[in-house]
Amino acid sequence: MPTPRTAFPQVEEHEATGALAEAYTSMRGTLRVPWVMFAARCMARFGDYVPAAWEAARPVFGTVGLERASDEIRALAALPEPPPRVEVPDDVRAAVRALHYGNAKYLLLITAWSEGLHGRSSGGHDDGSWDTTALPGGAPADMPELTLVDPRTAGDDVLTLLDRIVDDHLHHGPASDFRVLAAWPEHLAALHHQVLAPVVRTVDYDLRARDLLHRARAIVGAFPTPAGLSPAQAGEVVDDTQRAALVAMLSMFQRFILDVTMDTTRLAQALDGPEEGLRSPYPTTSGKL
Amino acid sequence: MPTPRTAFPQVEEHEATGALAEAYTSMRGTLRVPWVMFAARCMARFGDYVPAAWEAARPVFGTVGLERASDEIRALAALPEPPPRVEVPDDVRAAVRALHYGNAKYLLLITAWSEGLHGRSSGGHDDGSWDTTALPGGAPADMPELTLVDPRTAGDDVLTLLDRIVDDHLHHGPASDFRVLAAWPEHLAALHHQVLAPVVRTVDYDLRARDLLHRARAIVGAFPTPAGLSPAQAGEVVDDTQRAALVAMLSMFQRFILDVTMDTTRLAQALDGPEEGLRSPYPTTSGKL
Repeated sequence: MPTPRTAFPQVEEHEATGALAEAYTSMRGTLRVPWVMFAARCMARFGDYVPAAWEAARPVFGTVGLERASDEIRALAALPEPPPRVEVPDDVRAAVRALHYGNAKYLLLITAWSEGLHGRSSGGHDDGSWDTTALPGGAPADMPELTLVDPRTAGDDVLTLLDRIVDDHLHHGPASDFRVLAAWPEHLAALHHQVLAPVVRTVDYDLRARDLLHRARAIVGAFPTPAGLSPAQAGEVVDDTQRAALVAMLSMFQRFILDVTMDTTRLAQALDGPEEGLRSPYPTTSGKL
Repeated sequence: MPTPRTAFPQVEEHEATGALAEAYTSMRGTLRVPWVMFAARCMARFGDYVPAAWEAARPVFGTVGLERASDEIRALAALPEPPPRVEVPDDVRAAVRALHYGNAKYLLLITAWSEGLHGRSSGGHDDGSWDTTALPGGAPADMPELTLVDPRTAGDDVLTLLDRIVDDHLHHGPASDFRVLAAWPEHLAALHHQVLAPVVRTVDYDLRARDLLHRARAIVGAFPTPAGLSPAQAGEVVDDTQRAALVAMLSMFQRFILDVTMDTTRLAQALDGPEEGLRSPYPTTSGKL
């Protein structure tokens, strides 16, 4: 029986239709990632914000500059003490790499959307330094498909594990990352127990979230065009109450995605090594692009 | 011209009717404070959550135990370095004291509501140690009335000042505290410049917010009865989308009220001294009760 946390209200990818489905598809293709972030799925309940906000973000998020900025985020997302090394099957490792790759981008996206809807800058001060070269669309060829466990059909052991991970983070629901890894409950349990639980919400963790936030805000401020909607722009697609809800959603998910970015970075370090785990699994400098 | 931040969507006290107006009045009377928190005014846009959640909280929040717990919060809310001393007129000092008194209580209220709607404990493990003696209702006789500046009629200088305070905190709108103190713009500007701006969002500030959060959660866990609604209880008065919005609102305001609790504690220290500013301006041990 799913709890209200494991089944938090959202529009899942297979449930989206019309402009929302198109936005989901465009988001995945432009970011070159195999899932739509939890934040977007939750915000999709509030009017037409998500498709409109994605249209604002799309130009910047399809550039080589964004890929470089994401590399910088990943390199900054590690805690002072590296995690223990953990062995997992290749499909678990591939899933972690894909999530690790995507979270840095979603952190920049949520930051831009949050800054914009808070009435602050989400970019637009173009000094020519941003690399606006277009990235090819679509996920890299060797990136796995990801499937999120459905809480409505998951077993009690999986739901209990997801609930524990949610509570350890003081989150409101399970990140996509944990719903993906819940396909391998014993490995997720081991990774959480050995790699994440010892550090989540410690002083080092909270301080690194703080550093990452400030860096993400600085990167967003240097975007060549605004990637978020201002309150007035949002007002064209949502009413005042929906806008208030979206501001709160963005505030909540700003911290949430900081956390999962640090989490998947740490998982990548546990699987691939403390230095290798900080690098992009799909670097723009490789033939993979 | 108010910005979307200075005029964030909410139900102001004079706009409330019916069960919401009754809840606002009961909240002020039970907590013995002269205003309804910003969080409640914003959440009042989402179904009948606020009146129902207040009914859950009211028994605990009308006890001497709650007054003692608030004393503990205030004593913990100071930063390592005390602020400079600042001189202000008596009416400004009285307003700061009333806000300082109330914020510690509202921090516990938002924490209980947030824990509950996140599906965690908001109390109910009664071991007999909570002092359930009833507090007398109504604000202490010498507590001032407070008036919040209306952004729709405020001057541009006041709106600019409120916007700066919002941005320095990375908040979504001005706390009631700053809308009250905006009646004296030159004093609010001086207090912000000298007392708050140098510390807001510094490492010390963010770490103290973290400590306060953990202490507030521990206090709430020790409440004799649950003071928040569980997701299922909330589901009786709001729909799923409203519930999701409220979870996000509570996440956002959890941090927000930690911040303003530290802010008014620091303002009280600046006006009344580093030690005196940590004590309740309306202590239960005095004849004022």
